[in-house]
Amino acid sequence: MDMLKRKILESGRYLGNGILKVDGFINHQVDPQLMDACGAEFARRFRNCGATRILTAEISGIAPALMTGKHMNLPVVYARKHKPVTMPDDVFLTLAPSHTKGRTVELIVSPEYLRAGEHILIIDDFLASGATIAGLVRLVEVAGATLAGIGALVEKSFEGGREMLSTPGLQIESLACITRMDESGIHFDD
Amino acid sequence: MDMLKRKILESGRYLGNGILKVDGFINHQVDPQLMDACGAEFARRFRNCGATRILTAEISGIAPALMTGKHMNLPVVYARKHKPVTMPDDVFLTLAPSHTKGRTVELIVSPEYLRAGEHILIIDDFLASGATIAGLVRLVEVAGATLAGIGALVEKSFEGGREMLSTPGLQIESLACITRMDESGIHFDD
Repeated sequence: MDMLKRKILESGRYLGNGILKVDGFINHQVDPQLMDACGAEFARRFRNCGATRILTAEISGIAPALMTGKHMNLPVVYARKHKPVTMPDDVFLTLAPSHTKGRTVELIVSPEYLRAGEHILIIDDFLASGATIAGLVRLVEVAGATLAGIGALVEKSFEGGREMLSTPGLQIESLACITRMDESGIHFDD
Repeated sequence: MDMLKRKILESGRYLGNGILKVDGFINHQVDPQLMDACGAEFARRFRNCGATRILTAEISGIAPALMTGKHMNLPVVYARKHKPVTMPDDVFLTLAPSHTKGRTVELIVSPEYLRAGEHILIIDDFLASGATIAGLVRLVEVAGATLAGIGALVEKSFEGGREMLSTPGLQIESLACITRMDESGIHFDD
């Protein structure tokens, strides 16, 4: 998706160690028009996936998931990393290692909002090692729901997340796929 | 705003101790169409406030702030509660007591996205005691920016946040103002 790639080239910065700084438009400051356009693009790509709900992980998955939900007219659930007092005692919980945080985080969803028989579209900001998204997939499975597809704003293909998550027939979409980042710049797959 | 009040009456639940469960449409599952409508309503109420940027706090402020930013065509910054590796070493940081968490949380904004001379509109999900929003106001002040207004989806007027935050000429808007919650139900100000 050209608009996102252009923004990454203009405002993103490679910090070394595989870390891409996109906090000017994705995960600290957010560009609402860009997110709206990304949501529309996900809605277009997943228009036939039959999803009944969208699942993401707090924090930085919320913006792209919300805009996708708006365009697909679907409710959006974000997995919490800490159980709030408003959540029931019995929850779906899984652990996911966080690369950027250097520790394991919990992903928690209330059974009120993830039900057996549903068809769930997962949307997140990054698809890198795939560890967070794999955690969301486990939540879908443990709830007795099925997976409608996986979408990420930015993929770092060299971290192998797509291969790890891939199963026959599963649609995985990223709007900007980075194949290489180094001193020479950020390189996309086309 | 009738749409939000109706949703609170239909799907909200009073859990006792001043806690309103709205995790079916605001802070775990999000209703994108409702948020979009709330963003449009904030944009209408603050159309003359001259804001240059919107500031909120992660996590549950992101959805209403993002939709408001979309309708006002303004960038949205969410204060982080943990400093990510992509943030510079020198940041704006303040502490805010969190009622629902029972502890103090950090609110951190990068100076890249909150600058002197700007006019900042604060949007959050709840205006209760006002402690979180007061923290955001301090970040605005320490950055050398000025306050364009404060908007919250849900106000609990009995917790006194509005009085605490109020200064002459400051526009404070809530889309659903709860004056009382008890076994008999949830009562709005009109």
